[in-house]
Amino acid sequence: MPISLSLNSELRPATTSGEQAVAAVAKLHDFLAEQARVTDQEGRFARDSVEALAEAGVFAATVPVELGGLGVERLHDLTMITARIARADASVAVAYYMHIALAWYFARVVRFGADTEPGYLPRREWLEAIGERRMLLCSAVAERGADYWNLATTATASYNGWAVNGRKILASLSPAATHFYCRLKAERGDGAHLASAMIPADTPGVHVEDDWDGLGLRGSGSGSVVFSECVVPEEALLVRGPWGKRDAGMLEGRAVSGMGLNGVYLGLAEAARDLALETLSSPTSSRPRTTTAAGVRTAIAEMEIALTAARGTLATALQDFDSYLLLNKPQVLTDDMSRAMMKESQSVSLIVERAAVAVIDHAMRLTGGAGYHARHPLARAYRDVRAAAYMPPYSPPEEAADFIAETALSD
Amino acid sequence: MPISLSLNSELRPATTSGEQAVAAVAKLHDFLAEQARVTDQEGRFARDSVEALAEAGVFAATVPVELGGLGVERLHDLTMITARIARADASVAVAYYMHIALAWYFARVVRFGADTEPGYLPRREWLEAIGERRMLLCSAVAERGADYWNLATTATASYNGWAVNGRKILASLSPAATHFYCRLKAERGDGAHLASAMIPADTPGVHVEDDWDGLGLRGSGSGSVVFSECVVPEEALLVRGPWGKRDAGMLEGRAVSGMGLNGVYLGLAEAARDLALETLSSPTSSRPRTTTAAGVRTAIAEMEIALTAARGTLATALQDFDSYLLLNKPQVLTDDMSRAMMKESQSVSLIVERAAVAVIDHAMRLTGGAGYHARHPLARAYRDVRAAAYMPPYSPPEEAADFIAETALSD
Amino acid sequence: MPISLSLNSELRPATTSGEQAVAAVAKLHDFLAEQARVTDQEGRFARDSVEALAEAGVFAATVPVELGGLGVERLHDLTMITARIARADASVAVAYYMHIALAWYFARVVRFGADTEPGYLPRREWLEAIGERRMLLCSAVAERGADYWNLATTATASYNGWAVNGRKILASLSPAATHFYCRLKAERGDGAHLASAMIPADTPGVHVEDDWDGLGLRGSGSGSVVFSECVVPEEALLVRGPWGKRDAGMLEGRAVSGMGLNGVYLGLAEAARDLALETLSSPTSSRPRTTTAAGVRTAIAEMEIALTAARGTLATALQDFDSYLLLNKPQVLTDDMSRAMMKESQSVSLIVERAAVAVIDHAMRLTGGAGYHARHPLARAYRDVRAAAYMPPYSPPEEAADFIAETALSD
Amino acid sequence: MPISLSLNSELRPATTSGEQAVAAVAKLHDFLAEQARVTDQEGRFARDSVEALAEAGVFAATVPVELGGLGVERLHDLTMITARIARADASVAVAYYMHIALAWYFARVVRFGADTEPGYLPRREWLEAIGERRMLLCSAVAERGADYWNLATTATASYNGWAVNGRKILASLSPAATHFYCRLKAERGDGAHLASAMIPADTPGVHVEDDWDGLGLRGSGSGSVVFSECVVPEEALLVRGPWGKRDAGMLEGRAVSGMGLNGVYLGLAEAARDLALETLSSPTSSRPRTTTAAGVRTAIAEMEIALTAARGTLATALQDFDSYLLLNKPQVLTDDMSRAMMKESQSVSLIVERAAVAVIDHAMRLTGGAGYHARHPLARAYRDVRAAAYMPPYSPPEEAADFIAETALSD
Repeated sequence: MPISLSLNSELRPATTSGEQAVAAVAKLHDFLAEQARVTDQEGRFARDSVEALAEAGVFAATVPVELGGLGVERLHDLTMITARIARADASVAVAYYMHIALAWYFARVVRFGADTEPGYLPRREWLEAIGERRMLLCSAVAERGADYWNLATTATASYNGWAVNGRKILASLSPAATHFYCRLKAERGDGAHLASAMIPADTPGVHVEDDWDGLGLRGSGSGSVVFSECVVPEEALLVRGPWGKRDAGMLEGRAVSGMGLNGVYLGLAEAARDLALETLSSPTSSRPRTTTAAGVRTAIAEMEIALTAARGTLATALQDFDSYLLLNKPQVLTDDMSRAMMKESQSVSLIVERAAVAVIDHAMRLTGGAGYHARHPLARAYRDVRAAAYMPPYSPPEEAADFIAETALSD
Repeated sequence: MPISLSLNSELRPATTSGEQAVAAVAKLHDFLAEQARVTDQEGRFARDSVEALAEAGVFAATVPVELGGLGVERLHDLTMITARIARADASVAVAYYMHIALAWYFARVVRFGADTEPGYLPRREWLEAIGERRMLLCSAVAERGADYWNLATTATASYNGWAVNGRKILASLSPAATHFYCRLKAERGDGAHLASAMIPADTPGVHVEDDWDGLGLRGSGSGSVVFSECVVPEEALLVRGPWGKRDAGMLEGRAVSGMGLNGVYLGLAEAARDLALETLSSPTSSRPRTTTAAGVRTAIAEMEIALTAARGTLATALQDFDSYLLLNKPQVLTDDMSRAMMKESQSVSLIVERAAVAVIDHAMRLTGGAGYHARHPLARAYRDVRAAAYMPPYSPPEEAADFIAETALSD
Repeated sequence: MPISLSLNSELRPATTSGEQAVAAVAKLHDFLAEQARVTDQEGRFARDSVEALAEAGVFAATVPVELGGLGVERLHDLTMITARIARADASVAVAYYMHIALAWYFARVVRFGADTEPGYLPRREWLEAIGERRMLLCSAVAERGADYWNLATTATASYNGWAVNGRKILASLSPAATHFYCRLKAERGDGAHLASAMIPADTPGVHVEDDWDGLGLRGSGSGSVVFSECVVPEEALLVRGPWGKRDAGMLEGRAVSGMGLNGVYLGLAEAARDLALETLSSPTSSRPRTTTAAGVRTAIAEMEIALTAARGTLATALQDFDSYLLLNKPQVLTDDMSRAMMKESQSVSLIVERAAVAVIDHAMRLTGGAGYHARHPLARAYRDVRAAAYMPPYSPPEEAADFIAETALSD
Repeated sequence: MPISLSLNSELRPATTSGEQAVAAVAKLHDFLAEQARVTDQEGRFARDSVEALAEAGVFAATVPVELGGLGVERLHDLTMITARIARADASVAVAYYMHIALAWYFARVVRFGADTEPGYLPRREWLEAIGERRMLLCSAVAERGADYWNLATTATASYNGWAVNGRKILASLSPAATHFYCRLKAERGDGAHLASAMIPADTPGVHVEDDWDGLGLRGSGSGSVVFSECVVPEEALLVRGPWGKRDAGMLEGRAVSGMGLNGVYLGLAEAARDLALETLSSPTSSRPRTTTAAGVRTAIAEMEIALTAARGTLATALQDFDSYLLLNKPQVLTDDMSRAMMKESQSVSLIVERAAVAVIDHAMRLTGGAGYHARHPLARAYRDVRAAAYMPPYSPPEEAADFIAETALSD
């Protein structure tokens, strides 16, 4: 039996499908890493990396095998694929995850047969399209000055469907997306409602600004998308519930997608740790560190401890989530369960974020001055990892502590 | 399906045997908690608690069912039983764990049939004795001014076996032990060797001092045991290897027993958190806290996050360990594997210790002045949890960071 | 010029008076340390230590020289005296500080001639009494289930003065006190008012319970005092303001007394650090630590850094406070200034507390198993330092973060 | 008397000279801040800012008034000037500090009359030149793959002086410098020696590469300078001591310059804190945060606490240093004193660095998504503050913990 202590090394996928996808990413690692360097420097979308991964079937990972995908069903595996991409390029990992989290959700809906029920928007044909590399998804939710529960983009009932107007930001992958999966406020005779809509990128009135200029994740294409009088047919929009109410299904969605996003930060941290250790043991390092110095040893030990906490917590949490997700239809859970999932997702995300920040901090110190060069992978990791603070599962983030505390008090 | 997010609540045993043992402990909870209060105050061994748990079969948990035990095989379950005891009394949990970790190891040796091979001391009859409540084990290893690898207790070859001389400290459970499982230095014609010996408590020359007076764990009976010319038969002692060499089997033993010991600190932390939340919501609390205060909410959130990290990391690590332990005979592993296990055990222990310390700190603050009373459960927890600093898997503890760093560098 | 980098060694008093008092304490160090050991173990008030310090004039430190004192005027020096006592016994340091903070305040009132003005209770004759060793003060403020602003002890106007009823807790020094300086709710014809009263210990109806049984500070005599129909004359009580209102003068009082209390924790931390370093370099240590281990070196460095932060911050803050206090009469400040003082006092106290906790943590680890013995000075320090969490300047403590945040936002 | 609690607001200069310089900087604040934005984005040296500050006399701050300067003598004031610049642009603050720390040292040498003694390189005429704005200094010490004690740049004795060859990096201000103050290895008949040399920028063979491309401090002009057969006259080079020996004078120099450099990080943190609070209270903020959220309040409180620790510790340390520096000639101190200074400098720098990192972290979270925009001042602060890890007083940085620990152990 091979040595396999999961906490001492990269976490592995739980299924063969997952292993396949991870292997496909690993094969592209050097290409992705080189692209990462260039697109970060130039501040442009990593289009070639996305295309290479799509080509290799990674963007179809969650599509059933019979529809052209790899059949990945577990959130655990999705997270591992994302982490593997992040080892080369966190920007692409985020862009990828935004697409695949939706694609995974669609597959879950279809697996439970809910696509034929009222109350669910996803369609089996979308999975086919993704399986045939005809569909790349952009999750268009965030807006300037608004939180998740309070959006300004509207869909107004019109004679030929809905007319959508608004501006979304942080729309990762938007420059390559074929479709935008939007949250918006549907307004019709009976008032305002929370709604989701699938809008093809070639709909008249859709404008992708490709204007992302972030501190990090510079290759993720996370710019703005403007919708001006975009008409979408009736069936492409789902009215989900009364405006302004946080329902359990929405908390579930945020909790699940937030959990898997941790793969980005885990991958970043693992790559940073490896790079630091390589530099320390490299005979050609420009300035070899004394590996007997107390500061060096303590920093290495703390990197290992931080990674152990991140891996261990994330692995248990993913197992928790998959135990539930594999057996239950989306959006049918109790309020208690949805709060429990959000609380766990939020806590785990904070643990992974703190660990990743700590690892990258130690890695930079261990690597010496070279790591402060604008284009050094660790300098990029330092900028990229910061994004975690802005993408927590709970929204608005400043109320996350209140949410956890209230949930704990009401146990 | 019941809600079961493992990170939001107590970790559960993985098997029915484990559940049985945990249930037996839970039934005794109130009795144990009351004894904890008294024995802590008086600074005496919690003999009645130990007897009650022994009576209930908990000290025989790892003995196969056919030999009178509960058949618990997994380290995970052992850890959960220990955590459940610690919720009532960490002293008893430590005393229990010192016994059960040996009893579990004996059962593992027997399960793999190694008890009939040279190189293994444990005997099937020991399991029978434990199953029949005739054997309570004390692990007699620590010595003043010596580390694990460098002991002063000797066994000198004599005409009727071995003559043992020395003084062991921190011998938890010693006031109730029927047997002492000792590490010592065996001296015979061919020089000094590291050895293990099983010494019955009624052997002439064994003196249990019952002199434990610790800051915490005051009911654990962790006093000194003196061996003065104790004669033990040839077959009760196993010469394990050359003196002064750290072999892989020994690292494995320390790593495994260190991992399960985390149950003590997890249980302490869980009880502290529950107590704090109860106090906060109790209408009869002497001084109700404003649960809307930022300090209160942040403290609650940080308690939950710390527990999430401890539970998640420990659960994954125990799964890692059990995957290996259930399939492999003791003491046959490679150096690399033993170092990997020790590194993981050491890292996980630090994570659990830091989390438990943080949780107890927050719980005390949330509870207000009452928690600073000498006999308040949180004041006891504050003293008990401190023991974690002195019982790390790696010995000597000040070299733990070096061990982790060197292992990481040599990956 | 002698080497004098203040951050690398004990902070020193700023004046000759202060130096005198510190020297008097230093002379008693061994006696105090031995008493500390005994009274902590037996859980009784350190009466002999208090008497020895009183004898040496230390309890009269702030009384003007012409009235028999040492003439210490600066809060800085008061804090240094307290720290010097805490190096031997934190219990006595707390008891001392509770007395001397009042005695210092009385002297300040008298220095500004306010004792003859309405609105001030302190009298010049009190200073004389303290100077002549006839007066030991106990600050009787805290009550179970009440915060600083909301007390249940009442003074009811009666024909011969006021009748006081209530139970105070945490009344440090109470077993030796000749007088109790109380906060209470005065009730008379025109309603309820916040009031202060000076009550001699021999007043009929005063009962000192001497029932303190804390986790730490066990020699501080911080038990309960019960007042049952104690009659105090009109002039011994000062009505300070409308009931339930937090005025600037009260915030000033709390801020100032909270600031100096940091001496206790600084002294504890300094003693812990010294003890750990001595143990490390002692050739007779029961278990010498490898001072080359990374863990040892990092722990020493972090102790030094924590002490540097505590000393540096406290020294600047005391200079800030003394700049104001030496020039201004008590209780005449603006709301803004009183909030600024409280914010600074609260922040500095947290910094000193965190530093002291960290230093004692490192010191215990560096010292090894001996430090977990119930009566080891470090085990006592571990229990004593915890009190800091329960004695913050701001009350209630759970609202301290809100207070700091609100003050910052309103800058 | 105005409110002046130093820990609640910006630290102030201690002298009128210092106030003058700080006022001059304050007047330029808006210009510097705007330049900071542009030069950071374009990654080019902030030449216009340097010129404006030079024009305003700030680069001559330490020159005696009679020689055209402002007469600033205290390290405290130097640090305050640097902090004030850093509030607008940390890049310029670093570049400024590298110049002014030398100019201050020269003035100190001259003040003690040491410029006419053997063993000191600085000349009174340099001060005149600085006073007349004819001299901008670049400290050319660092080299790739070498630490402070082990340099590869050489000066070889030749018939007309010394011939200097080598490549220096991290030479802040180099694009504007008129002179390079270099550390190098002097090689002559009697072997290798550590030496300092003053090399005019217009010396043939000097090449300023202006190639700085850092993660942060992008406007600081911290690129490479190459010396190719630069001939410098005999008197422009001082042989300081045997090659490879760390003498007390050198530790003093590093300790002193390291201490003042903390102004950069303090200024960065203060600006970040102010910006976050402004955003929170701005009615036009794109996304107002709920200032009642526990996360918001705790973050604000922790910012204040971190700033209190940084200010307090730095203020005391600067007072310590100035007490010594104002009374003592450079480079005549004992080994013990030089180690004490370095230990204090190193500890204080770590405290300020950690505080600044924490403040900027909180400020970014409080500010929301806008702070992750590449050009947001907080995103720049996040990149700039990171430099602290690479510019510690002790070199090599990985041995700093060892240095502190060894110094503490040998007390």
